[in-house]
Amino acid sequence: MPRLRQDPTTKEWVIFATERTKRPDDFVMERSHLKKRTRDLGCPFCPGNEASTPPALLTLPGENSPEWSVRVVPNKFAALVPGKGNEQFRVGRIYRETEGIGAHEVIIETPDHGQTLALMAEERVLDVLTAYKQRYQSLREDPFIRLILIFRNFGESAGTSLEHPHSQLIATPVIPRDIQQKYEVAIAYFDGTGNCVYCEVVRDELELKERVVLETDRFVVFHPFASRFPFETWIAPKKHDPSFGNVPDEDLKELAQVLKLALSGLFTALEDPDYNFVIHSAPVEDELKKYYLWHVQIIPRLTKIAGFELGSGMAINTALPEETAKFIREVH
Amino acid sequence: MPRLRQDPTTKEWVIFATERTKRPDDFVMERSHLKKRTRDLGCPFCPGNEASTPPALLTLPGENSPEWSVRVVPNKFAALVPGKGNEQFRVGRIYRETEGIGAHEVIIETPDHGQTLALMAEERVLDVLTAYKQRYQSLREDPFIRLILIFRNFGESAGTSLEHPHSQLIATPVIPRDIQQKYEVAIAYFDGTGNCVYCEVVRDELELKERVVLETDRFVVFHPFASRFPFETWIAPKKHDPSFGNVPDEDLKELAQVLKLALSGLFTALEDPDYNFVIHSAPVEDELKKYYLWHVQIIPRLTKIAGFELGSGMAINTALPEETAKFIREVH
Repeated sequence: MPRLRQDPTTKEWVIFATERTKRPDDFVMERSHLKKRTRDLGCPFCPGNEASTPPALLTLPGENSPEWSVRVVPNKFAALVPGKGNEQFRVGRIYRETEGIGAHEVIIETPDHGQTLALMAEERVLDVLTAYKQRYQSLREDPFIRLILIFRNFGESAGTSLEHPHSQLIATPVIPRDIQQKYEVAIAYFDGTGNCVYCEVVRDELELKERVVLETDRFVVFHPFASRFPFETWIAPKKHDPSFGNVPDEDLKELAQVLKLALSGLFTALEDPDYNFVIHSAPVEDELKKYYLWHVQIIPRLTKIAGFELGSGMAINTALPEETAKFIREVH
Repeated sequence: MPRLRQDPTTKEWVIFATERTKRPDDFVMERSHLKKRTRDLGCPFCPGNEASTPPALLTLPGENSPEWSVRVVPNKFAALVPGKGNEQFRVGRIYRETEGIGAHEVIIETPDHGQTLALMAEERVLDVLTAYKQRYQSLREDPFIRLILIFRNFGESAGTSLEHPHSQLIATPVIPRDIQQKYEVAIAYFDGTGNCVYCEVVRDELELKERVVLETDRFVVFHPFASRFPFETWIAPKKHDPSFGNVPDEDLKELAQVLKLALSGLFTALEDPDYNFVIHSAPVEDELKKYYLWHVQIIPRLTKIAGFELGSGMAINTALPEETAKFIREVH
């Protein structure tokens, strides 16, 4: 019998129909062998080709170092661009349009074309997270920016065409609809209970344990109760904080360790799957509020998004998070 | 300069970043050659293999005909199954779960494995639509069903694995979140203006003409102002009606013609692209209300859904609907 589960953070119902997939390791069978990543002379993100990207916004370890470990550059085909003003104007009688003000940046995670986050040294992952945080903190000062999302598309089915390890940041002048919705749910929960719904989820998961993949002093990694995708994985801090931009440096160090472990667990269990991850934060005007918790959402791309999901926004998941979490725990 | 457009029916902002794609025919270049569809002896939907599906719920032209043109069967791996009661129960402190009651059916559109909707005779397309309508009308009598979505996944990237022409119907015991959201927007618009927002869109598009692909007595085909995907296409009736289940037979005949034209336009222009379509209707309890218009949404799968879209719900579209509509008009 299929079942429906409601995500308390979005009020979304998710269909769990697990008859088609028998066991979590069925997802491995669908995957091809490990990806080959070989240096491509024309790669715009490789050392020596720095001139083929726009000038860097940030370089780590620093401008004076002979070699860089992380470079942040504007996206050459930006979805949103820096600017001032975001006046909305009407088109026809009922339509609204505005300029695409904001930011769209690329974080080049390493000079090594053949590397990947799941296998990188922890200190290198920390460099990447440090670059995320510095760019986040810089962009939140822009009065026209309302939300900053950092994300990674890994592999073709996750929407990337460039192989060189990189992630992206998009800063928007409006609150995207799904985020608005999450936000309204979080506020209503806070109004009704005085608690942050995300912190309640973290507390419950830590108590129930069955969906937890790993736990450290400051973080928990788990597969959510109403996961929309098989092996969907969340990394959440144990201490309330609405924004990734506020994370203290000592927590960032632990996050590097946890992110690497979470990704390498999926790498090993599912044989180098395509995936996306997204770092969710509150809108910048609400970074000190009590009702939202920043978190990382990792989505392995093991199944296709089809007509029903596109038409309704409702997900059909073929694997239970209790079972996928157990599978990953056994890998660790 | 990228721009943002807001969909008046969802309040969703869509980013239009068209620098990457220069012209609508760039999308053709990414497509492979036309699909080969050859009969597969093991195909469960081919004539002779009727025993490999669950018993038919509906057969056209009728049970006594020696050959069928359309067969509707329960999905063997159903996401939702018929049943009674949908009591919600709590899991832990904050989670809710319920049984997966509803329906999940497969409409086998033709006995001919090598056929496709875009190329089928109009009378055969009408048979398919007639089967949709009959199943819709039968299921809406079920007191546990709240929403009925009919959809088609065509091609691997649209989420289908079975080649034989088929579409699906899922009937849900809850209103999916995106539909709820559309609904709230439509009600608020009606409360504010006394009009159906979808009918306003249709009227504006017919007046402006630039996004219209084709028009008949009863229907209009257009690319929406805030399309989420390149070549996203809507078919809408000119006369207000919230539900596909209410469409009179004479309109259904015209719809068969229009659907076939819309699909064959995409087939020709984009070289047989993968696509999804969804027939949107109001929840069954609201089928006579004044604020929602049933419509068909066709989504060619030309680009990938990546991390930003998954994390925010906000779409990045690389083509303007004015330009894609013009391109399709030239094909017709």
